[in-house]
Amino acid sequence: MIKRALGIALLAGIVAGPAAAQQASAGVSPFVMNTLFVVFCGVLVMWMTAGFTMVEVGYVQKKSVVAQCAKNIGLFAIASTAFILSGYGMMFPNGAWIMPGVLGYDGIIEVTDVVGFGSEFTGRGHADAADIFFQSMFCVAIASIVSGTVAERMKLAPFFIFTAIFTAVIYPIQASWTWGGGFLASEFGFKDLAGSTVIHVVGGTAALLGAIIVGARKGRFVGGKAVTLGSASLPLATIGTLILWMGWYGFNAGSYLSFSSDADAANVARIFLNTNLAAAGGVISAAFISFFKENRFDLSFMLNGALGGLVAITAEPLFPTPLMAFAIGIGAGFILFFAIQLLEDLRIDDVVGAIPVHLFCGVWGTIAVAFTNSDATIFGQLASIVIVIAYVASTTGFVWYLLHKSIGLRVTSENENVGLDQSSLVVATEHGS
Amino acid sequence: MIKRALGIALLAGIVAGPAAAQQASAGVSPFVMNTLFVVFCGVLVMWMTAGFTMVEVGYVQKKSVVAQCAKNIGLFAIASTAFILSGYGMMFPNGAWIMPGVLGYDGIIEVTDVVGFGSEFTGRGHADAADIFFQSMFCVAIASIVSGTVAERMKLAPFFIFTAIFTAVIYPIQASWTWGGGFLASEFGFKDLAGSTVIHVVGGTAALLGAIIVGARKGRFVGGKAVTLGSASLPLATIGTLILWMGWYGFNAGSYLSFSSDADAANVARIFLNTNLAAAGGVISAAFISFFKENRFDLSFMLNGALGGLVAITAEPLFPTPLMAFAIGIGAGFILFFAIQLLEDLRIDDVVGAIPVHLFCGVWGTIAVAFTNSDATIFGQLASIVIVIAYVASTTGFVWYLLHKSIGLRVTSENENVGLDQSSLVVATEHGS
Amino acid sequence: MIKRALGIALLAGIVAGPAAAQQASAGVSPFVMNTLFVVFCGVLVMWMTAGFTMVEVGYVQKKSVVAQCAKNIGLFAIASTAFILSGYGMMFPNGAWIMPGVLGYDGIIEVTDVVGFGSEFTGRGHADAADIFFQSMFCVAIASIVSGTVAERMKLAPFFIFTAIFTAVIYPIQASWTWGGGFLASEFGFKDLAGSTVIHVVGGTAALLGAIIVGARKGRFVGGKAVTLGSASLPLATIGTLILWMGWYGFNAGSYLSFSSDADAANVARIFLNTNLAAAGGVISAAFISFFKENRFDLSFMLNGALGGLVAITAEPLFPTPLMAFAIGIGAGFILFFAIQLLEDLRIDDVVGAIPVHLFCGVWGTIAVAFTNSDATIFGQLASIVIVIAYVASTTGFVWYLLHKSIGLRVTSENENVGLDQSSLVVATEHGS
Repeated sequence: MIKRALGIALLAGIVAGPAAAQQASAGVSPFVMNTLFVVFCGVLVMWMTAGFTMVEVGYVQKKSVVAQCAKNIGLFAIASTAFILSGYGMMFPNGAWIMPGVLGYDGIIEVTDVVGFGSEFTGRGHADAADIFFQSMFCVAIASIVSGTVAERMKLAPFFIFTAIFTAVIYPIQASWTWGGGFLASEFGFKDLAGSTVIHVVGGTAALLGAIIVGARKGRFVGGKAVTLGSASLPLATIGTLILWMGWYGFNAGSYLSFSSDADAANVARIFLNTNLAAAGGVISAAFISFFKENRFDLSFMLNGALGGLVAITAEPLFPTPLMAFAIGIGAGFILFFAIQLLEDLRIDDVVGAIPVHLFCGVWGTIAVAFTNSDATIFGQLASIVIVIAYVASTTGFVWYLLHKSIGLRVTSENENVGLDQSSLVVATEHGS
Repeated sequence: MIKRALGIALLAGIVAGPAAAQQASAGVSPFVMNTLFVVFCGVLVMWMTAGFTMVEVGYVQKKSVVAQCAKNIGLFAIASTAFILSGYGMMFPNGAWIMPGVLGYDGIIEVTDVVGFGSEFTGRGHADAADIFFQSMFCVAIASIVSGTVAERMKLAPFFIFTAIFTAVIYPIQASWTWGGGFLASEFGFKDLAGSTVIHVVGGTAALLGAIIVGARKGRFVGGKAVTLGSASLPLATIGTLILWMGWYGFNAGSYLSFSSDADAANVARIFLNTNLAAAGGVISAAFISFFKENRFDLSFMLNGALGGLVAITAEPLFPTPLMAFAIGIGAGFILFFAIQLLEDLRIDDVVGAIPVHLFCGVWGTIAVAFTNSDATIFGQLASIVIVIAYVASTTGFVWYLLHKSIGLRVTSENENVGLDQSSLVVATEHGS
Repeated sequence: MIKRALGIALLAGIVAGPAAAQQASAGVSPFVMNTLFVVFCGVLVMWMTAGFTMVEVGYVQKKSVVAQCAKNIGLFAIASTAFILSGYGMMFPNGAWIMPGVLGYDGIIEVTDVVGFGSEFTGRGHADAADIFFQSMFCVAIASIVSGTVAERMKLAPFFIFTAIFTAVIYPIQASWTWGGGFLASEFGFKDLAGSTVIHVVGGTAALLGAIIVGARKGRFVGGKAVTLGSASLPLATIGTLILWMGWYGFNAGSYLSFSSDADAANVARIFLNTNLAAAGGVISAAFISFFKENRFDLSFMLNGALGGLVAITAEPLFPTPLMAFAIGIGAGFILFFAIQLLEDLRIDDVVGAIPVHLFCGVWGTIAVAFTNSDATIFGQLASIVIVIAYVASTTGFVWYLLHKSIGLRVTSENENVGLDQSSLVVATEHGS
């Protein structure tokens, strides 16, 4: 990346440290406030990893919980690292385009980048390191989306290899199109504040391709009928969902990246409120649908309703009024209902429902932007969704296929029967859920 | 609500967004700082929902864990929504009293309310949307208190209906008396900073009436003796309690609503410290009581000791010295001991101990204010407690009774035997805890 | 402590409260910003208690989960309290040295201390109460480290007594040497920003002495071979590790204690990024080691890899470049591998692996400071580590031994067989994990 003349002065700033801070006679700068906001939102997004993990542990069968934990802790480490080495520089080419607006790379993260004052170099109002930290947590989230869908029959090693490629290259390239100044932003006027498409549709599409290529679990579809295979622990799926709900405030609000003017504060507060109401709407429509259709309250549908509502509000959590945000969540519940049915009809096995939640509700939320944000057009939103899905489906499909044909994606039939925990991939001692 | 002339200018502020923020040459305003503080405290209060859920899942029998999760995710959505539609406007009538000081309604939440700058309209120093978000999380908390007490034998549908009425109408009306400029504040000088009474006594009283009307679980009282029915997972009850402990910092500190002057900072920091010490005191007295009385450390009593201490410090977390806060927590442990015994003697079945924790320790904490805050009087505190309990007992008792006589509160005897998870209300697949 | 002339004025500040804040025409002061930062980081450190608890509950056998919960909730309360009464005054003698640089005591925490403006009295830029709260959460963390190692065979009562002595006296005395202006800082130039040694080596050493004196669990070493005794719930160990990972941002960043200048913001953001990368490095090296050595991904090793990386970066999370931070984490994975083997060879039974994680990786991280912070010397770092270990080993060894010879540390053989949950110490009802 660009070498920075101020490097030495900034290192001096490090050495001076807290003492220097106390000598400041003036007040607190917007740069400080924005940075605090971004790092704390980053912590909330990091926390979503625990949410994804518990949701997945909750929905898989008891014989796969340990493998699912290993998968999630591993992907967290891999995505954090891959994104620093390569992804961040591809996502924000900062002018270093190879193909303008489509593909760029600004280099590996180095020391001077993270000491510097972002606003002086990149026009950002917060510290570079805060931005890198926050964006790397987003990149972890996208890898987490994939992990649940392909649970219980995919080997860990190819999953980890996929994660590295996905987070180092595939995800950041398309993210640069929207958030890094690329062609979707400039040519299509695409609006996706916190990533209904850039994160959730992308993760959901990668999960869909993985599910198709690895195939369904044994016994999931018998004689043309879908069979429910059981969940290890719905209480853990519940706390996982509540963790995601909590982390989502940071996901959506943090994407505003600024919290220093009075307008910022009012706007970001609105994002908190809208994010919550969309989740509530998703729960309520799922509860109504299951109650009127089956005369019961279906917990896992309600939990996914919350997540679907959250995914849907992610593209535009600021402009909707509270009631519009609630309505977007209500819509997500209905979309989930049909998407779950569709996947079963297509005999695609999605262990946790990540495809309905992230792909379908992500598309819904991205389209809905056109109705609340006057800068967005239906054409621009739809075209961008199609382009992103086509790109992600083809690239991830290619990687999944290569892995399938080389080292193999799927555990042996015997391993699947006994469960990934007891098979050779993960040695499990006595454990519960 | 009041139509705001600044609406268009503010919408322009939204469009400008982050760019505008960076142009700010001056420092950060108190409005910004207060808003940041309130929304992050709101996230901590939201997190308490996960705490209540895990506590309840931990204490119910294994056959009821799924239903308890569905209850909690459902009440979160319902309370969030009901409060926005009706509760917030009743809680803060903003001058729109129907009966002055007793009953008012400022209307549904609309777009202009959450875009505006609260301080310019209502004298608040933080964004309206931040206030609405924060207060709606409080409203979720109060519904959560009720849910645990009536577990394992109440149907979900009437519970959800109760929750909607409770959070849309019953809770906010009495909250307006204390926090919305109503008669308890103005006539009785009632002091309850974060809601030992306004939240916890109210929730505990609603739970008590529900427990009386729905009756005890089968087998809970046999031949005049209380029988312990077993807990699904004490580790989950433990993490639930620690989640509540964590969230309570935001509950108490956030109620100060301001973090912009040096005095604010010193005061709010003190609230964090006192809140923690009261919880510690509750644990320690519970541990001593159980150790000296039964020669063991009773985990669930210690966990409820923490919660009792937290409830008790909630009315006045600022004025007590640290040792006083600790003593208030110690007192809560003793009150719990007697309250638990009293409920058993009265054959009231409170699955999670919410009535001793929230109602009894809430009363204790509210009275204790008179000894640390010189603006409070014992008469004013006691009279307010009595008025609030009388109001809540009569209104919630009436609603519970109506539900009991119409659609019925209680599951069938067969459903209770097999557990709510396996009964028709919630279809549970294979699950653990 | 020093009586403060401003006390009355400050109490007036309390009374004025939020109203006064709104009258502030100027912006927000560094004091306010630093205080906000410190209290929110304190909440993250508090949250680590839940992490330790879930890790321990996850790794012990099912028959000990309730006792382990009781141990953790109890130590939280005891450490919080002991530190307020005695520890804080010993850790920060504030000039009141009894033996200069070695032993001091500034008295019990009183009301005037926590109302005051720290910067005016102690040169700190944040509120006294925020500092006390934050430091007391550190003190809880150190007690938590010990609890896991000695699980499943130590009685709760002597453990609680040990915790009180450890947190009231032993820990704070050595902390004063480094953080309270004592001789390690002044004579050895010891650098340990967030406590790889002051917290983790100290906790790990206390755990080691406890494990030696109480002995291994029955059946842990059979015929000279280590036997794996089983884990109650690896999913709970996983969420516990993710909780610790989350809390560690607050642990390391909060130790900077300042977030008000632009340099502060850039530096602290860097701490977030480095902390995350060290954890990622630990996971990745553990995954590689287990995959190449045993052809599997060992979940518990990967989880402890994350914790080892976090411990190692704690001494100096600011100066390393991101890749250095990652490398420090990678190193931690290798150190863990050898340390675990060493402990087994020495037949020391560490139920959760706290000694490899906290003691060994803490030493590694403390030494590594000499390679990234030019103010640190290898001699100064090594000498300080040796002095601290010698002090802690002798004092905690003495206390453990006294307890062992007086009331006894170990449960009866019969109690151990049946499990602490079912033995007389903790009455467990039906429970799972």
